[in-house]
Amino acid sequence: MNSSSFPSSSSFSFDSADPGSSIAAAAAAFSNWGRWGADDVLGTVNFIDAEVRRSAASLVRRGVSFSLSMRFQNDGPQKGWRRRTNPVHTMLDTGLDAVYGDQGFPHGFGGADDMVVMPLQCATQWDGLGHIFDHGKAWNGRDAHRVVTGEGDLVTGIEKLASPVVGRGVLLDVGRVLGSDGELPDGFAITVEHLAETAAAHGVGVRRGDIVCVRTGQLARARREGWGDYAGGPAPGLSFGTAGWLHSTQIAAIATDTWGFEVRPNEFEGAFQPLHQVVIPHIGLLIGEMWDLDALAADCASDGVYEFFLTAAPLPVTGAVGAPVNPIAVK
Amino acid sequence: MNSSSFPSSSSFSFDSADPGSSIAAAAAAFSNWGRWGADDVLGTVNFIDAEVRRSAASLVRRGVSFSLSMRFQNDGPQKGWRRRTNPVHTMLDTGLDAVYGDQGFPHGFGGADDMVVMPLQCATQWDGLGHIFDHGKAWNGRDAHRVVTGEGDLVTGIEKLASPVVGRGVLLDVGRVLGSDGELPDGFAITVEHLAETAAAHGVGVRRGDIVCVRTGQLARARREGWGDYAGGPAPGLSFGTAGWLHSTQIAAIATDTWGFEVRPNEFEGAFQPLHQVVIPHIGLLIGEMWDLDALAADCASDGVYEFFLTAAPLPVTGAVGAPVNPIAVK
Amino acid sequence: MNSSSFPSSSSFSFDSADPGSSIAAAAAAFSNWGRWGADDVLGTVNFIDAEVRRSAASLVRRGVSFSLSMRFQNDGPQKGWRRRTNPVHTMLDTGLDAVYGDQGFPHGFGGADDMVVMPLQCATQWDGLGHIFDHGKAWNGRDAHRVVTGEGDLVTGIEKLASPVVGRGVLLDVGRVLGSDGELPDGFAITVEHLAETAAAHGVGVRRGDIVCVRTGQLARARREGWGDYAGGPAPGLSFGTAGWLHSTQIAAIATDTWGFEVRPNEFEGAFQPLHQVVIPHIGLLIGEMWDLDALAADCASDGVYEFFLTAAPLPVTGAVGAPVNPIAVK
Amino acid sequence: MNSSSFPSSSSFSFDSADPGSSIAAAAAAFSNWGRWGADDVLGTVNFIDAEVRRSAASLVRRGVSFSLSMRFQNDGPQKGWRRRTNPVHTMLDTGLDAVYGDQGFPHGFGGADDMVVMPLQCATQWDGLGHIFDHGKAWNGRDAHRVVTGEGDLVTGIEKLASPVVGRGVLLDVGRVLGSDGELPDGFAITVEHLAETAAAHGVGVRRGDIVCVRTGQLARARREGWGDYAGGPAPGLSFGTAGWLHSTQIAAIATDTWGFEVRPNEFEGAFQPLHQVVIPHIGLLIGEMWDLDALAADCASDGVYEFFLTAAPLPVTGAVGAPVNPIAVK
Repeated sequence: MNSSSFPSSSSFSFDSADPGSSIAAAAAAFSNWGRWGADDVLGTVNFIDAEVRRSAASLVRRGVSFSLSMRFQNDGPQKGWRRRTNPVHTMLDTGLDAVYGDQGFPHGFGGADDMVVMPLQCATQWDGLGHIFDHGKAWNGRDAHRVVTGEGDLVTGIEKLASPVVGRGVLLDVGRVLGSDGELPDGFAITVEHLAETAAAHGVGVRRGDIVCVRTGQLARARREGWGDYAGGPAPGLSFGTAGWLHSTQIAAIATDTWGFEVRPNEFEGAFQPLHQVVIPHIGLLIGEMWDLDALAADCASDGVYEFFLTAAPLPVTGAVGAPVNPIAVK
Repeated sequence: MNSSSFPSSSSFSFDSADPGSSIAAAAAAFSNWGRWGADDVLGTVNFIDAEVRRSAASLVRRGVSFSLSMRFQNDGPQKGWRRRTNPVHTMLDTGLDAVYGDQGFPHGFGGADDMVVMPLQCATQWDGLGHIFDHGKAWNGRDAHRVVTGEGDLVTGIEKLASPVVGRGVLLDVGRVLGSDGELPDGFAITVEHLAETAAAHGVGVRRGDIVCVRTGQLARARREGWGDYAGGPAPGLSFGTAGWLHSTQIAAIATDTWGFEVRPNEFEGAFQPLHQVVIPHIGLLIGEMWDLDALAADCASDGVYEFFLTAAPLPVTGAVGAPVNPIAVK
Repeated sequence: MNSSSFPSSSSFSFDSADPGSSIAAAAAAFSNWGRWGADDVLGTVNFIDAEVRRSAASLVRRGVSFSLSMRFQNDGPQKGWRRRTNPVHTMLDTGLDAVYGDQGFPHGFGGADDMVVMPLQCATQWDGLGHIFDHGKAWNGRDAHRVVTGEGDLVTGIEKLASPVVGRGVLLDVGRVLGSDGELPDGFAITVEHLAETAAAHGVGVRRGDIVCVRTGQLARARREGWGDYAGGPAPGLSFGTAGWLHSTQIAAIATDTWGFEVRPNEFEGAFQPLHQVVIPHIGLLIGEMWDLDALAADCASDGVYEFFLTAAPLPVTGAVGAPVNPIAVK
Repeated sequence: MNSSSFPSSSSFSFDSADPGSSIAAAAAAFSNWGRWGADDVLGTVNFIDAEVRRSAASLVRRGVSFSLSMRFQNDGPQKGWRRRTNPVHTMLDTGLDAVYGDQGFPHGFGGADDMVVMPLQCATQWDGLGHIFDHGKAWNGRDAHRVVTGEGDLVTGIEKLASPVVGRGVLLDVGRVLGSDGELPDGFAITVEHLAETAAAHGVGVRRGDIVCVRTGQLARARREGWGDYAGGPAPGLSFGTAGWLHSTQIAAIATDTWGFEVRPNEFEGAFQPLHQVVIPHIGLLIGEMWDLDALAADCASDGVYEFFLTAAPLPVTGAVGAPVNPIAVK
């Protein structure tokens, strides 16, 4: 498989009037339970092996780096849903204290210090493997209630992913290829065919172990027009029909510039994030959300190179079911 | 300069009975104020240019990655000094809620969610350029009280460093070379000569733009014996006499496996972190603290290779004067 | 003065086109600086003496108690202005953990535990004497920058008010007397004459040492219609012209059922909370905001008794410039 | 029963070698399940009726008030057990910002603002009825896992106690009567006989509906010697044998100046807070901990009056299983 090949799987067909059966069918068809043994805590990150990282390093040609992270700040997208607030950053000591106050340090020494309070999924993030369950089952078939208790995720806490998430990143800028002014409209369901068309336009392929970054343009819109319902409202995103492709490609991770990765409103009347329900507990796929892909996308459009070395190391909060991340793409 | 060359600067001599004059002399001798213009917000990170990153990528030979981050958890080193507590991670929803509670989701969907409260310098971190002042002056000669207010660091907030901290990392395992059982004793002041001896033993050099990781072994000791006074107590660390070397080498950053980077007790009777007072506001040097270098160090000892590709992207909290970081070394 | 007397002071006249001079004039006219000595930290709470408390206790006739506090919860009025969020309450341990998890306790013991993150002025509260300054001066003429630093209020922290705020409460239900369906419209400026008319309708007076509770009905409206702009938007409230009355009556405290105590929009074009600027730093008056007076008001309307024993003890957070409070009225 | 009568119940005898049976026996013997109907959420607070409050008000004779609350501050007793930290109070705006910074307010207006992060049981507190379970059962026989979920206590949240906790307080200063220099030693188990002896020495009785404050002197010791193991270590406290007395007296609440109310080490080898396990879920008794009774106790010793009007209104955090409280005693 050369670097521009695109796996030929097509969209998974599903009955939008029957969420329960559709979810169950996808879960059964695309399960990776047991694939890496009963004790696995990494899921599809297992697809990132040494060879993937080694060859990804060769993508560093110009030596430029891009942060794919939003800023973590009070002026953020969250609106309080399920107690998800924006980060609150507060100073413990400031330059004003150093200059005009009495910090008690000798010889002209002064300092500033600060703290933050934040939901772990308030801005650019990884969903941990303990974030979503299907009928009480977590990744690899474990009982959800034994994995994630009041103490946190005792098995697949995000700290297990502290070191391995380093490899080849691929940008699929669907917004630029298929959207208007670089942006897909809210409610646009991205299918496998859309992904293929985008990859073809870019001249880039998707391979085993890849970290696929899908840009919809919604974040650019929110930046321009205000957050509005960015958190939880209508959004472009992956169609439920991509579940099979997400499985068969053996990608390690996928991230979008939207709150919720999959298209919203969801494609089933009475479901909530049905693609999550398949890909996290059954595929064991690492999902990134609220990634800021705009600066990278502009660069890719400019040089025509849509692959890069990508380090996306979560903040290793022990037992967390998600984590903030500042992903760094290097070209 | 080849990759194993070591800058020949010697230790800066100072009068341990006269902290005020010694600090002032070092500040004057090693200032980078204005070096990158009046508007600079990056300090020595400016030394990391595209060529540095490009050549660093060639250090990825085996495709193995190492997290250099502690775990962020309640069982951490902090003891409350200046309100620095350990992170408190709490669950908003759990697997127990999903299975036995009533989350209100349809079709067997369940989820877990969480939050964290933490000082930004509670565990593995970068000190931002707004963290330390000298006589009311912040990096580049700015007034501290205009840079860091109750709103945060309005000029050199850590978010300014979101993308560029990617380059060549070098490990100087002073603990292994000069210590006993891999550990330097508390109070051991690491001089330029010690660094040179270590580099020579490793067969590695130090270059412009490097991110230098100095392992003392103190964290290994804390791991074995308990945190004790790791936060703020006696520790091995850089001597004040390294100030000139830190300046002349044009390194981009330096990080240690200790709470405070410099030796403690400090080398002046009545001073507090005097090396900080020179290197942050005057040199504009990025300082990393509480990095966990042990797994990387074991690997370096095993393969004899002490240089690597390093991504150390701070969590970009807007206006923060420090930030948690999960540095990733790739060999 | 008998219990139904009402101080005959009239509204202070001011020039709404000249905020600066008006504020300065009121500050000069109504200052209590030095009244209780240079070291005073209580302000008008000094007016509550033993006799006030003793006679207030005689108002407990039926033995019924009313909480005047909102609930502290995520579904609250705050919208993030100046980083004021609603409280975030999170569980550390739950009944689910006790029953289905593994808490590690013997003999069937189980427990739940929790924490809260909240701005101190997020819901029912007292403004501390260090909350507002006028031209750099805090209560009693102290320099604001020496009183409230990054360490908190070093002089008039709310903990100083931990014990004394116990006395006679008086409800002036202006909404019921002058409003429509018990509610004043937003922007309604309550004058001394309105207060007098209300008191007369109730048959209640206002005395030295009283804690005066002014009900506008805005909270009832927010409860019915949603929070909307309750926090910081238009609201009924005290007119700037009441400054003299607030001073001459020698009341100990005043509280409203609104976010900001004084009428909004403020009565001067380019001012922000001008009445605060006079009453807190100059009068030293204790201001309560977001008190829930509705249940008490219904009872007063029912039995015709608008005076009661009131305990309003702030949560004594050391150095706080405001504090949550659960005021208890007993009739 | 006159005001100085003391209920004649004796200590409950138990087998310290058999915690399981002893706890079960006490639970069966002293249960109040169903006493106030199936929907009850108040427990023994039901004993405080209007007559109790009315007669308590007559105890206000001198008009002096006492806060029974510790200060909520970083320098507190907590050591991190089960993530219980001390409160972290941080400033959002300060006097330094007002004077030397740029707050953006007009006409000389300046302000300070702040927030707090704290476990709800970090300092002076009430245990809510949802705090402790026995074999999966919460107060009134409810299933613990249906009462307290990740959303909080859905049934007996502390907000249910926002208004009623107002009545007669009685101080039993066991430390002063039976201790040395006013302090009981750690590990001292207070029996019914000790309580009776103390009450007799004070000339005070205990009645239905009382809020009984038991002073051991341990807090005074911690204040003098440092917190040490105040949180969770050895302490004087109620004997398990008082369970029957706590039930038969029909008191509304009991509070101590210790971390954990009952004697520690507990009187059964392998138990954890066995008295809690009986009194909270079975008796429905409100338990106060870490109350600062010293100033009140000094006053009572001085005037010989050990009864008073007491308002102890919890901060009404919706769904909380415990809450900070600033109890106010008025004599």
